Amino acid sequence: MGPHPAVAAIRLAVRRVLHDVLTDITDSTGITPRAMAGGPPGAAPHEPPPAPLVLVACSGGADSMALASALAFEAPKLGIRAGGVTVDHGLQEGSDIRAAEVVTRLTALRLDPAEAVAVTVGRDGGPEAAARDARYAALDAAAERHGAAAVLLGHTRDDQAETVLLGLARGSGIRSLSGMAAVTGAGRYRRPFLQIDRQTARKACMVQSLPVWDDPHNTDPAYTRSRLRHDGLPALEKALGKGVVEALARTAQLSRDDADALDDWAAEADASVRDESGQLECVKLYALPPAVRRRVLRRAAISAGSPAGSLFARHVEEVDRLITGWRGQGVINLPGRVEARRQGGRLVIRQG
Amino acid sequence: MGPHPAVAAIRLAVRRVLHDVLTDITDSTGITPRAMAGGPPGAAPHEPPPAPLVLVACSGGADSMALASALAFEAPKLGIRAGGVTVDHGLQEGSDIRAAEVVTRLTALRLDPAEAVAVTVGRDGGPEAAARDARYAALDAAAERHGAAAVLLGHTRDDQAETVLLGLARGSGIRSLSGMAAVTGAGRYRRPFLQIDRQTARKACMVQSLPVWDDPHNTDPAYTRSRLRHDGLPALEKALGKGVVEALARTAQLSRDDADALDDWAAEADASVRDESGQLECVKLYALPPAVRRRVLRRAAISAGSPAGSLFARHVEEVDRLITGWRGQGVINLPGRVEARRQGGRLVIRQG
Repeated sequence: MGPHPAVAAIRLAVRRVLHDVLTDITDSTGITPRAMAGGPPGAAPHEPPPAPLVLVACSGGADSMALASALAFEAPKLGIRAGGVTVDHGLQEGSDIRAAEVVTRLTALRLDPAEAVAVTVGRDGGPEAAARDARYAALDAAAERHGAAAVLLGHTRDDQAETVLLGLARGSGIRSLSGMAAVTGAGRYRRPFLQIDRQTARKACMVQSLPVWDDPHNTDPAYTRSRLRHDGLPALEKALGKGVVEALARTAQLSRDDADALDDWAAEADASVRDESGQLECVKLYALPPAVRRRVLRRAAISAGSPAGSLFARHVEEVDRLITGWRGQGVINLPGRVEARRQGGRLVIRQG
Repeated sequence: MGPHPAVAAIRLAVRRVLHDVLTDITDSTGITPRAMAGGPPGAAPHEPPPAPLVLVACSGGADSMALASALAFEAPKLGIRAGGVTVDHGLQEGSDIRAAEVVTRLTALRLDPAEAVAVTVGRDGGPEAAARDARYAALDAAAERHGAAAVLLGHTRDDQAETVLLGLARGSGIRSLSGMAAVTGAGRYRRPFLQIDRQTARKACMVQSLPVWDDPHNTDPAYTRSRLRHDGLPALEKALGKGVVEALARTAQLSRDDADALDDWAAEADASVRDESGQLECVKLYALPPAVRRRVLRRAAISAGSPAGSLFARHVEEVDRLITGWRGQGVINLPGRVEARRQGGRLVIRQG
């Protein structure tokens, strides 16, 4: 009898990602995984390199505990060492004790290294963004310290759906609908569970008798994501049907591919709409499809010093009207003290 | 003292659209609006054409009554005749009396013609789609009968937001996120209120003492849109903040432009990935960006006879794997008895 379907599902998801990690190592080093894991004697190099290490970022919650268990099961079969890191955000009383407990659980799964890292959460960009920034800095440092080939993150399809809705609320176009990528940080971060739902992860923990911890932040209505998870998304499911989470996750993938293609187009178009001195020509901009033109304008504003995070769709629209609705408008002010103006058939975007 | 801000807003929105209608007439006939409306004597042609007619589709609800009132006010100033049509769907007891009342109200606004058209609603595609199909057929017929230059529809920004969420639930990509276009039916249908919120339309009716009718269908939880309006969207606003409706409406516009640009790209790419005999070459398809390749595949499936409405993202993904994940798969069955197979380096998509 095989494992419970939920356990089989999470293991398969992790196995696929570990294969990708090994393939990437082979591609970049020319050394095949088998040799690294200590393959048949004839194939072993003079000094065999250490087996690659893959870390799991684990909060102790169901998603990342399920991920840790699947990594612990699959990694040895592929000649990979499995380790785990838990980040102590220091935001709650006793978070250090909590983190130590998670380390104990990771150690019980035979993850090595298994360590807790304490961070100080700042205030930049709101509580969620600040915690995230501190967490990734700590994970980056841990990956460097241990020479890890990858860090696995436990984001599920439900997290992805929430991320898409959060992006939708920004109203800034399809890039913000594209959610989380399966691979980020130049291959360092991998999200094996983006197609796995939260319920499956929870079930996998239950049938494996893994104790899990429910972060009170996840149910705190002070957090946008928590409100979305407990009220917004369930209400949407009630109105639109049970397939909403899956539909949102698929929207993320499709939007990501679309946004990538249009960004590439804009990068190519950029060169074709400039005169000899590199200035943007209004006539040529006008001839571009609106979707491409707006991306070219956005690129120009950012390269002039406008911070990408503060440059909204409405800013770009206003600059676009210098091209499509020219009636002698004055200077358009953009974030980062960048100014856009139309001047003698050229669009000039620069810091004021 | 000018009109109430809500009334000013709806009038401005209608005035802009009427200008567009006149511009389109001038562009297609070479006759300027002033001449049509009976301009200065010297400019009048021998037999002056009748003043153009613009109809409003009016349910008697706040949105379309506001629209009718703005049309009645603005049209004469631009030499346009204003008329109105209400469609009796025959779905409720006494709907004919209701329709007659709406005609009375349209006549009171001095719309001429003002008429009710009874339709029979079928069952194809569910109750909402069937009612919509019957309604547009009746409006098309009315526009033809009266030689109307345009038919105005009262869809608001809130309707647009709901449409985006309905599209999101399909999970079929950015085209389904692009909501309703401001202009459809080759210019026949215009939606002046896509940037106006429902509250403004309601307010405009109130301050103009226009009686409005609340369609019980709009609050019937049997209808997806009604559940979305009364539960889903408010819950989403509570979780994400008040700007959600505006963000959804902006997403619609951005997605529409993006989808248009990518469709154009796919149409161009289509020719470049075929051999001399017109067959799709797998190697060339593989080299396209995923977003463009999937659109080329979708086009091919539709032109082979697969009905666009039944061809989902997951179908196209499966065909795509014949290109990107080839491991000797068999025939892929698509809606409309269309089959896709890989054969000697070519992708063959045809009716089986």
